[in-house]
Amino acid sequence: MLSLTYKPYNLKKKHVFRIARGARTSTPLVLTRITFEGVSGYGEASMPPLYGESVESTMAFYQQLDLSQFQNPFELETILNYVDQVAPGHPAAKAAIDIALHDLIGKLLKIPCYQYFGLPASQKAYTSKTIGIDTPDVVKERVLEAKEFQYLKIKLGSDTDKEIIQAVREVSNQALYIDANQGWTDRNKALEMIYWLQEQGTVMIEQPMPVDQVVDLAWLSEKSPLPIIGDEGVQRLPDVLKAKHIYNGVNIKLMKSTGLREAYQMIVLAKSMGLKVMLGCMSETSCAISAAAQLAHHADFVDLDGNLLVTNNPYLGVGLEQGKLQLSNTPGLGLAPVDWEAIQGE
Amino acid sequence: MLSLTYKPYNLKKKHVFRIARGARTSTPLVLTRITFEGVSGYGEASMPPLYGESVESTMAFYQQLDLSQFQNPFELETILNYVDQVAPGHPAAKAAIDIALHDLIGKLLKIPCYQYFGLPASQKAYTSKTIGIDTPDVVKERVLEAKEFQYLKIKLGSDTDKEIIQAVREVSNQALYIDANQGWTDRNKALEMIYWLQEQGTVMIEQPMPVDQVVDLAWLSEKSPLPIIGDEGVQRLPDVLKAKHIYNGVNIKLMKSTGLREAYQMIVLAKSMGLKVMLGCMSETSCAISAAAQLAHHADFVDLDGNLLVTNNPYLGVGLEQGKLQLSNTPGLGLAPVDWEAIQGE
Repeated sequence: MLSLTYKPYNLKKKHVFRIARGARTSTPLVLTRITFEGVSGYGEASMPPLYGESVESTMAFYQQLDLSQFQNPFELETILNYVDQVAPGHPAAKAAIDIALHDLIGKLLKIPCYQYFGLPASQKAYTSKTIGIDTPDVVKERVLEAKEFQYLKIKLGSDTDKEIIQAVREVSNQALYIDANQGWTDRNKALEMIYWLQEQGTVMIEQPMPVDQVVDLAWLSEKSPLPIIGDEGVQRLPDVLKAKHIYNGVNIKLMKSTGLREAYQMIVLAKSMGLKVMLGCMSETSCAISAAAQLAHHADFVDLDGNLLVTNNPYLGVGLEQGKLQLSNTPGLGLAPVDWEAIQGE
Repeated sequence: MLSLTYKPYNLKKKHVFRIARGARTSTPLVLTRITFEGVSGYGEASMPPLYGESVESTMAFYQQLDLSQFQNPFELETILNYVDQVAPGHPAAKAAIDIALHDLIGKLLKIPCYQYFGLPASQKAYTSKTIGIDTPDVVKERVLEAKEFQYLKIKLGSDTDKEIIQAVREVSNQALYIDANQGWTDRNKALEMIYWLQEQGTVMIEQPMPVDQVVDLAWLSEKSPLPIIGDEGVQRLPDVLKAKHIYNGVNIKLMKSTGLREAYQMIVLAKSMGLKVMLGCMSETSCAISAAAQLAHHADFVDLDGNLLVTNNPYLGVGLEQGKLQLSNTPGLGLAPVDWEAIQGE
């Protein structure tokens, strides 16, 4: 039978991280472990406060769960449907169950999770490195620290967008992803900005305008010379269907999708509709990043750098070489052996 | 490395089988075997002539394939994309590769294929039993032979539709699926017929009108009191997207979808769009029927009786008890041990 244990963990950031809607120095996590016949799989819920989940809400959710009723970890559909129906919401809390189950299943089957999905280890998973909103001098410093990456993801959406890009371009000619985090509200200005950003070497624009400006976003996705990717506007599977009429692509994150199983289904759906697929993350340990990386074969844009911007990552997982993710071919998520009891970081 | 062997097989029908567009007494198959490190998986292409594939076209297709280039059977995405791109078309030939690979993977992982898809063995897979177009007396005889089934699938689309139903009702009150195989062309008459069929205990209508009468089919799907399921009009994944605007559900068959992997993706897509899912088949051995049955958990309608209507089924697979499919919990497709060399049936 399946047995769940979990503990809170405070993941500390290397630098104060600013986006259009806030700043913070750490991210609350709940780490999960699911054990079956002596084999353990690991998962994680990452909960940046602005999305509404917390250590408290996740612990309360887990107190309602009874995984001991399940005798077979392979019946993911049954188990995850049960978890999903215990309460609405809680996508990160649910993802931590899904991730631990996938790690467990891979270990029981003795194959890496990407093979469980029938996929090869991606050979082209060049992740972007995210640069938060900051003063031009700090931005330059961060960019110079990120030389090994082929792509930089620049957070915009404040009054100083052009200055930030100019600061980046003073020290780098790396290709840019732009994430405005809903920071622009005038579609004509947004389109003008996108043309300017294209001249500056940008290849993709993420969530340029607020999610409720659907008509403006659809207009922008039609006119934009660069693909417009929905992030805050695309949470779970049904959102991908709607996204077809609003965006050119979708940013799929395990903490939104409730984990790998639904993320994979979202990818299948997005691809079948001709939408671009981006794989994104929150501030996460190598556990959840390694999980998302299992699906990288299908990604047009990879933004899995959440484990690189922290100081107390308790796991050793997916590697990085010249900006490219290196998936381990060991079973499950490919994490190095875990000493669960030793992990302390409330 | 992967090694493919195959042989033609002529699958003989118990009775002459008539539908709106023809009659036949046997079905040409090509049986496949894929071996990896001493473990073999089995598959099958079933090719009713009217769909355009044949033993010759499938053998010619396989002569172009080189599976020995693949070292890892788990990388289905890579292998099946390669197979798909060798030549357009050939869905049954491709399905036979996909099915054998799934059987092989299940055996290597030591789990039934349904668990590979994260599914439980369906507890509600009541298959319909198909009754071909025939004289009222023969129809009655066939119906009386099918007492253990909860559903009968009645083939209509000729001038004698009402007589056939009346004959059925003289000897049975089982629930009916109706398959007109594109046999009706006037939408008003079709709707009238559907209302009458509903009174006669019908629960679902399959492909009532020709696939190119898209506007009429959409009209019918909106007006019909019973779900309208697309069959000939829905072959592969992109067709499911279009089906949303034409049908209320889709009939997914491995011989159309190129196998289990795309069939599963079609199911995910159909469910996400609110379409009903039917699992169907051709005249097939217990190999392909057992394969389709792995996905039965997701089916609203199960029509997997192709192995029951034949006299020389060379495999022992999914069982049947009071009209319900009984999935084996043995690895892969759950086939009993196979003596490949002994199978002869050209």
